[in-house]
Parts: sequence; structure tokens; C-alpha cells
Amino acid sequence: MARVLTPRAEDFPRWYQDVIAKAELADNGPVRGTMVIRPTAYAIWERMQADMDARIKATGAENAYFPLFIPESYLHREAQHVEGFSPELAVVTHGGGKQLAEPVVVRPTSETVIGEFMAKWVDSYRDLPLLLNQWANVVRWEMRPRIFLRTSEFLWQEGHTAHATEQDAKDYTLRIHHQVYEKHMRDLLAIPVIPGRKTDRERFAGATSTYTLEGMMGDGKALQMGTSHELGQNFARAFDIQYSSAAGVREYAWTTSWGSSTRMLGGLIMCHGDDNGLRLPPLVAPTQALVMVVKETDGSITAAAKGLVDDLAAAGVRVKLDDRVDTPFGRRAVDAELKGVPLRIEVGPRDLAAGNVTLARRIDGSKTPLPIGGVVAAVTEALVADQQGLYDEALARREASTVEVKTLDEAIEASQSGWAKLPWSAVGVDGEAKANESAITVRCLFREDGSAPAAQDEPNLTAILGRSY
Amino acid sequence: MARVLTPRAEDFPRWYQDVIAKAELADNGPVRGTMVIRPTAYAIWERMQADMDARIKATGAENAYFPLFIPESYLHREAQHVEGFSPELAVVTHGGGKQLAEPVVVRPTSETVIGEFMAKWVDSYRDLPLLLNQWANVVRWEMRPRIFLRTSEFLWQEGHTAHATEQDAKDYTLRIHHQVYEKHMRDLLAIPVIPGRKTDRERFAGATSTYTLEGMMGDGKALQMGTSHELGQNFARAFDIQYSSAAGVREYAWTTSWGSSTRMLGGLIMCHGDDNGLRLPPLVAPTQALVMVVKETDGSITAAAKGLVDDLAAAGVRVKLDDRVDTPFGRRAVDAELKGVPLRIEVGPRDLAAGNVTLARRIDGSKTPLPIGGVVAAVTEALVADQQGLYDEALARREASTVEVKTLDEAIEASQSGWAKLPWSAVGVDGEAKANESAITVRCLFREDGSAPAAQDEPNLTAILGRSY
Ligand SMILES: [Zn+2]
Ligand SMILES: [Zn+2]
Repeated sequence: MARVLTPRAEDFPRWYQDVIAKAELADNGPVRGTMVIRPTAYAIWERMQADMDARIKATGAENAYFPLFIPESYLHREAQHVEGFSPELAVVTHGGGKQLAEPVVVRPTSETVIGEFMAKWVDSYRDLPLLLNQWANVVRWEMRPRIFLRTSEFLWQEGHTAHATEQDAKDYTLRIHHQVYEKHMRDLLAIPVIPGRKTDRERFAGATSTYTLEGMMGDGKALQMGTSHELGQNFARAFDIQYSSAAGVREYAWTTSWGSSTRMLGGLIMCHGDDNGLRLPPLVAPTQALVMVVKETDGSITAAAKGLVDDLAAAGVRVKLDDRVDTPFGRRAVDAELKGVPLRIEVGPRDLAAGNVTLARRIDGSKTPLPIGGVVAAVTEALVADQQGLYDEALARREASTVEVKTLDEAIEASQSGWAKLPWSAVGVDGEAKANESAITVRCLFREDGSAPAAQDEPNLTAILGRSY
Repeated sequence: MARVLTPRAEDFPRWYQDVIAKAELADNGPVRGTMVIRPTAYAIWERMQADMDARIKATGAENAYFPLFIPESYLHREAQHVEGFSPELAVVTHGGGKQLAEPVVVRPTSETVIGEFMAKWVDSYRDLPLLLNQWANVVRWEMRPRIFLRTSEFLWQEGHTAHATEQDAKDYTLRIHHQVYEKHMRDLLAIPVIPGRKTDRERFAGATSTYTLEGMMGDGKALQMGTSHELGQNFARAFDIQYSSAAGVREYAWTTSWGSSTRMLGGLIMCHGDDNGLRLPPLVAPTQALVMVVKETDGSITAAAKGLVDDLAAAGVRVKLDDRVDTPFGRRAVDAELKGVPLRIEVGPRDLAAGNVTLARRIDGSKTPLPIGGVVAAVTEALVADQQGLYDEALARREASTVEVKTLDEAIEASQSGWAKLPWSAVGVDGEAKANESAITVRCLFREDGSAPAAQDEPNLTAILGRSY
């Protein structure tokens, strides 16, 4: 069989590009750094959105939509503003057929415009918490683009909330961190993320706390898959988000922000893919099972295959028929593997004569003959088992590629091929700066019980170090 | 009671603005012409999207996502291109911190970029039909903005398809026109739209046929609520969308496009609203029933109200509790009316002592006492009846405001306050131009059986004339 993909061990970035092209997930857009998300990848994204959206709404947040265009002057209000157009911004200078009096930026995030409206909408403590989320495209000009991971335009959800107290803001941020992001990534994407706190050095500018979820990719590198920030009262001061307390005193609100994006599609590919292509967790797979007519004789094979499709669809399985018998079966099977379809049910004349079909499982690579009457039960069981199997495999790989060490030098060594786990006290602010010189970063900090610390100077914290995307 | 809204008869545009502000549907964005869609309106939009998206997918189309930014040069390929930046375009001239070599436009539609990729993806007749849809924001600089109706940025779905034959393209376009748009607008939005064909004069530039759905608003004007276009082979020639036929001949594909937008939210408000505010069809209402504690005595009223909320939620009703007894009941009731909540269940001490509550229906304005045990049945019945009631009322108003006439002069006269219906032969191309001078347009043409004609020179067509948004 001709080699379809560059093997991961040979060139992981090249393998990633190959998978995206061959599985027809995305293309580069005509403007450098932009992407076209093709139907298969978009269908995965829709399932991710639906799951995430339900979880976000369960926290009490409501969706809204804020404009794409932001007056350049809004960006002056943030503490970290640098004069001149930031390199990440796309700037609209012409509209309505003429030059604009004030240039307008395409939102790199909606923080500022949402802050402006929060200030208008919040008056009394009764208006708090104000919990907003939006699904939108954002633009951050990218010099070294890479589909899904770093693109000049990407799709995301961005949450922005205002609270009456610091405690309420903290509780809510951690709820998003664990109940929305961590659960989504573990349960839907089957990625065993590590939740934790970013160090002060890695923290989002303007935040008082940044929480992250770190996933290990197939090459041992880390991908930051979603972040949640406590912004203290910094942002409320910059945008004048004030409320009257029950006691009648004007107070600044405590705000948070949190986001996750199409970058997670990159994580999904790089965490689960193998040398034969994509491997999709059944819960996000647009097609969970493909019923394949191996070859046709008198029409009876296709009839049997169609019967299975109907039975599987009736059982709630997302199933498709492949009856393109004029294309060689081997090529069709390779294509289904490339695209990561979790299960193939192969229906051929010889097997069928004996009342059997073959169940081929993408995730563990097994092939099992199966009586035709047992297909629905076997498929529904395999979908549950393979969702878990993919998670278990990723977890085992992460554990095998994470080395517990004692010193910074050992950590830097171990980070060449995976992650290092060691006491944060053995790294510290100076050690962190030194690791950065070797392109190694502190991915996150956590307590002995796994929870996120309130500050990096808490005692007995553990640090994860690694290279990252 | 203080007047909350400008009455429609006094100033309809002002009433529209008032409703949007007071019902907290939307705000103007900081960049002129943009809008902020607030949670209530966005929740309506989400229900519209879900219904429309399911209908679109049922036609076989798949969702994808194409970039926001389009090279300016792409726009040169279309026949109707005018040199210089079109006044409707927003142009990005700076990105990555410097001036761009080629300016980039923010998509006013994705026609060109999707055409470019269709040309890459279509090779053989086996690749056809190619049925794509995307949900996205688009930008068309607007000099006289009006929230939802004309905004510089709006949200929409745009469908783009390629077919092997003209007949297939026509059938598909009409399927979208009727099975997606017409059904969505009638069944979900309760708007009795008239489906028909646009005249050559009103047709989308570059299309060979444009189909429209026209709704009558509360002031008798027409709103074009969704359009579908057959593009012939014009577009395929401009973008080189070719395929090899079964006979091995290279042929140009036949393409279509179709779109509907947040403009429909404006239609929903203007079709159903009354002088007390919004009236929402139960199927799109984020809150279908509001259980209100009229006033509290010993906690028993709130307890009973909560019991009703639980019972209604268990029956699948989208229900909320209003127990803000420190706000006067009258003010809360006015607010619920303003926001168009279809049903209010008012729970007060006197009624409750007799085992009763009051069911107040927004749509017909009725108030009925009800035994508390009968609430769930009464509410579920009322939701179905009021969805239909709203449609029937809009249909009755449209019929009362549509005058059947014989001559163009009569049609122009009748169009001052509503629609005119007359034989297209009594208007013709010259009559159409004359009507346009009085700001009156031919909204659509249809055959005697109501179907859309294949061309405007078919005999025995009926025309609808009116003023429009
Ligand atoms: Zn500036
Ligand atoms: Zn040009």
C-alpha cells in the first residue's frame, strides 16, 4: 500500500499538514493566515459547540452578539495598550467608499466593547452577576500561520462576566474551568487535560489569575486548550463597570473572561491521530459507523448493507452507506481510516453467505467477524468502549511521556521528548526564566490534591514543564 | 399608565426603535451602523437558526466556514464589478503592523471565495451537486442604518451550490425557497409570506432567476425576508467551476445562492408587535410562560408559583418565575407585555384562596381565571393556539390591506397604505419604472396556482406592488 501520510516519527508537523489535507478537514484561505473549514471539520466543530454551549448555559450565562468592528480608541483604555497599531491587529481604514475619520480594528477579542456595554447595563447589585458569552470570529494577524493552531482568523467562544464580589468571580471562573472546559475536553474530546494555574510569567496580561487546561499531543508537546481569567477590578476600573451595593455604596465590579477556539480541532487531531490518519472520538465523529459494500454480486449485498444502515440509524447511530463498488475496496477502507471514522461494517459476499459481516474498529485496529443480527448491539457497545479507549490510550501515553524529576536540569532534559513534573519550589521564578531560554515553559501549577492554587507562592505546588504549541 | 411606546399609528419607525430599546433587544454598536444583539433577541435568533439549519441540512447541504477576508482582486472577476472601492465595502489596509501589499475586503458575501474553492473541489459529475451553507457575519457599509433591517454588519446564512444541470439547479433553488424559507417563516415565525419571482428589474445582479418571500409589516409595507437565486452558468464561468460529464466532456456547472439574515428579526417585530410592545410566536419565544407572584403574604404564594414552574417545565414549557414582589405588579406585567412573553400565569392571594390563578395571554389580550390544577393543560393548549392565532391575525391584516385592482394608477394609489394585487400585464416593464418613481416596487410575480414563474413574460401572472423596507 502506498504511503499516504508522512509518519509522525519522521516529521510530526508534516504529518499534521498531511492529515488536514488528506482527510479534507481544511484548506488555506486566499488571504495568508486564513483558513477554510471544510464540512467534515465543521461538523466536528458543530458537535463541540453544541456540547460546550449547553455547558456554558448551565452555568447561567446567556449568549449575545457584539460587533466585529471596534473603534481604535477603545484599545487605548486597557493598561497594556501600546501606541501605534499592534502587529496582531487588522485595521479597516476605508468604508462607505471613503477614508474613515477614525480607523476601526477588527476585533482581536471583544473584551473592550463588551466592557463598554457592561458599564451601561450594570447599575445595581441586582444586575449582578452579569454572565455573557458569544460565539464569533476574531482576527489576530499571524506571521507563522498553522491551520487550527495559529490562524489570522479563528472561531471561538468568549465569555465575559461581572460579579459583585471577588469570591463570586473566582468561584465562577473555576466553574467554567472545571465544569465547562475540563469536562468538555475529557468527556467529549477524550483528551486527558491537566487543569492548573498559569505562573505569573505566563498569565494573561491584565488578569490576576489565569487557569489553563493542558493537553499532551502525539509528539509530547503541550497544547493550551482553553483558558479562564480572573481580572480582579482592573478591567472594571478601565471601563467604569460600577454598581450600587445593597448598602448604597458605588463599587467596582469583579470581572472574568474565558475562551476556547477552533484551536481545539488541532488538539483533537494531534492528540489522537496515528500514522494512518485521524482517529475521532465517537461522540464528536460526524459519521460514527460506515457500512461498506465490499463488492456486489446480485444486489443482495447492497440490500443487506442498506438494512444494516436502517437498523443502526434507528438505534441512534450516525451511520452512512458506502456502496461505491466501482472504487477498489482497499482504497475506500484507507480513506475511511484517514478520515477517522470510528467503525466500519464490511459486508462482503463470502461472509454474508455465512450470515456474517466484519466489524473493523479504527481506534484499536481490530477486525472481528460478527453475525449480522448482532451488529447493532456490537456497534453501540464499541462506540462507548472506543470513546473510553481513546481516552485511556492518550492518558497512558501522557503518563509514559511524563517524567517525575527533582531538579530544573533534569526537567529541561525530560522536556525534550515529553513533560517534566517536579516541585515548583525546585523551579521558581529564576528557574522558569532559565527554562524559557531552551523554549521550555511552565505549563501549569497545581496543589497536591490537583486543585488550582490561589497564587504561585503557595507551598507544596507541583509544576509541569514542557515544550508547547 | 404612562405611555411606554410611541403608538404605531403616530410614528411607526419610532415605535420600532422604542420596542427594540424597551424590550432590550439590541443597541447601536460604537462604530456607526453596527449593532449589539442582546440576550433576548439572540435567544430568538438561536431558535431561528436551529429550525433553519435543520431544514437546510434536510436538503442535503453541509455547513462549512470560509474566511472573513477576501482579496480585493477576487471582486474583479464578477461581471458587475465597478472599479474603485464600492461604497458598501469595508477595506482592511493594515495588518501585521504594516500596510498590506494588496488591500483585503471584509466579506460582503462569500460568493467569490466559495466559488474559488468550488472550482478546486469539483472535478467530475460525481462531485455534484455540491451543496454548501455557512452561518457567518458579513459587512456592507450602511449609510442609513436601522437595527436588524439595515446594519453595516449582520448575521446570516448563505448557501452556495453547484449542479450538473440547469433543471437540478432550479429544483434545488425552489426547494430552498419553499421547504426551507417559506416553511420557516410561516411555521416558526408565524408570518404569512407570499412566495414569488422577482421581476428582471428587481432581480439580483448576475442571477437568471431570483425568488423572494414577501411579508407585510404592521404599517402595510413589504419586507423581503429571504431570497434564492439561480445563477445559470454565469458564475461558474467567472470562477471556472467545471466538471467532466459522464460522457467525459468538460462542462460548466450551474450554480445557485440563497440567504436569510438577522433582518428577519426586524420582520418578526414589525409583523407582530402592537402598541404594548413585542408579541412573540410561542415557538421562538425564549420564555413562553412567566409565572408571576402578584404579592406575597406568608410564603404560600411563592411556593404555589414555584410548584407551577416545576410542573410547566416538566411538561416541556420554557417557563420562568417572577417573584420580584418589591417591584409593583403592574410594572412587571407591563414589562412582560413589552417583551412579548406569550403567557403570564398570575398567582395572587385572593385567587389562590379559591384555588385559582389568572392566565393572561399576550397575543389576544385575554385574561381568564383558571383552577390551579388546570394550568399545565391550559398553557400547552394556549401556546399552540396562539402560534396559530398570531399567524391568522397577520394574514387577516394582510388581506384587509391588499387591494385587488385593475390599473397601474389604482395600484399606486392602493400602495400608499398596503399592497396592490393586479395582473402583471397591466403593469409591465414601463409601468414598473413609473411605479418606482413613487417609491413603489413590484414585490413579486406568481402564477394563478401560486407557483413561481420561470420568466416574467409568462402569460397570466399576478403582481404584488407596494412600498418596502
Ligand atoms: Zn492606540
Ligand atoms: Zn477592483
